[in-house]
Amino acid sequence: MARILISSGPTREYLDPVRYLTNGSSGRMGSALARQAVLRGHDVVVVTGPVSIEYPPPATIIRVVSTFEMLDACVEHFKDCDGVIAAAAPCDFRPKSGEAQKISKSGEELSLELVETPDIVARLGAMKRPGQWALAFALETQDGYRRALDKLRRKNCDLIVLNDPSAIDAAATQVQIIDPAGITMTVQGTKDDIASSIFDRLDREFLSAENPRLR
Amino acid sequence: MARILISSGPTREYLDPVRYLTNGSSGRMGSALARQAVLRGHDVVVVTGPVSIEYPPPATIIRVVSTFEMLDACVEHFKDCDGVIAAAAPCDFRPKSGEAQKISKSGEELSLELVETPDIVARLGAMKRPGQWALAFALETQDGYRRALDKLRRKNCDLIVLNDPSAIDAAATQVQIIDPAGITMTVQGTKDDIASSIFDRLDREFLSAENPRLR
Repeated sequence: MARILISSGPTREYLDPVRYLTNGSSGRMGSALARQAVLRGHDVVVVTGPVSIEYPPPATIIRVVSTFEMLDACVEHFKDCDGVIAAAAPCDFRPKSGEAQKISKSGEELSLELVETPDIVARLGAMKRPGQWALAFALETQDGYRRALDKLRRKNCDLIVLNDPSAIDAAATQVQIIDPAGITMTVQGTKDDIASSIFDRLDREFLSAENPRLR
Repeated sequence: MARILISSGPTREYLDPVRYLTNGSSGRMGSALARQAVLRGHDVVVVTGPVSIEYPPPATIIRVVSTFEMLDACVEHFKDCDGVIAAAAPCDFRPKSGEAQKISKSGEELSLELVETPDIVARLGAMKRPGQWALAFALETQDGYRRALDKLRRKNCDLIVLNDPSAIDAAATQVQIIDPAGITMTVQGTKDDIASSIFDRLDREFLSAENPRLR
């Protein structure tokens, strides 16, 4: 059995005490993956942004708000894990300076300077030890295959799951699982179906006792 | 019995197909108010942004995403209502131009121009007919009483409920109900308790048969 880190849900980047940048990630995919992992007897650590979905109780759940907090929690827990499934959709821009008080309406335009947040998957990929594996998700609105494959290689991942915005908060969807050679496997169904297919693939490549890559 | 419009929840203002500006409004206060209204025998129309909370089934539920959509739905339904309770937290800034494709990370800062969205409460206040009433909510992080009273008067409301960010997505909270003369009543408890106190006040001022302001 393995110990698996799963990141899930969105993060929030606050402009002021009330308003924030985020996305519609519901944590459903992360929750479905955590259920599969538990069903297959693995130890699971879930690092999740703010969501209303539930995770399976045997999993250790770590709740975070911002991308920085998600990065810190993932880096801390990845050390003790065999692999990571990065299913979260961290907010990848944040306001350069957050305001301590609620921004008042003035009738004028407001110019907001955004800076990029740390790339969590790239950081985890860079810290992988021999035997550790990383599966990432990519959400693209155009040129998906090329961008996903580029992300997979650049961020030192072992597999990447490509989906499009129709997957956000949806019950059923279709994804492509891409490996470093660019070979693609298409999977469709509910998020539970997709989570099961992803674990079948992880089992074959990283989790089965016969596999030489197993620690 | 009266017909009451209740706005509830946050709105979203998209930067691109994935990312948006919003706030942590959960719709709990709007849902508690809708339950009170239904319990007291009123007809209820709820215009709500994206939330995971449920509203009481006898209410008519209209689901919207953006502040413009919330404005349109509120203006359309307020015409046929005796009063409005504006418990929503519409996003009051939006990106000047949304991108059709997901914004890619470039390593550079990103300057985002924001413009104000229409003020829904002010628009409803301005269209009030004799006999119609409007109760608004104000969320302030500083100088709350002065700002709330100013909003109440400027937006032609009859009552305003002042709360602070600790109320967002909280089960229990404390609010102040302020009238146009600046007289304040403090109420605390669960959101159901607060909804009940708000309806006690509405009953006295606008909804009881003995009240001369009743249409």
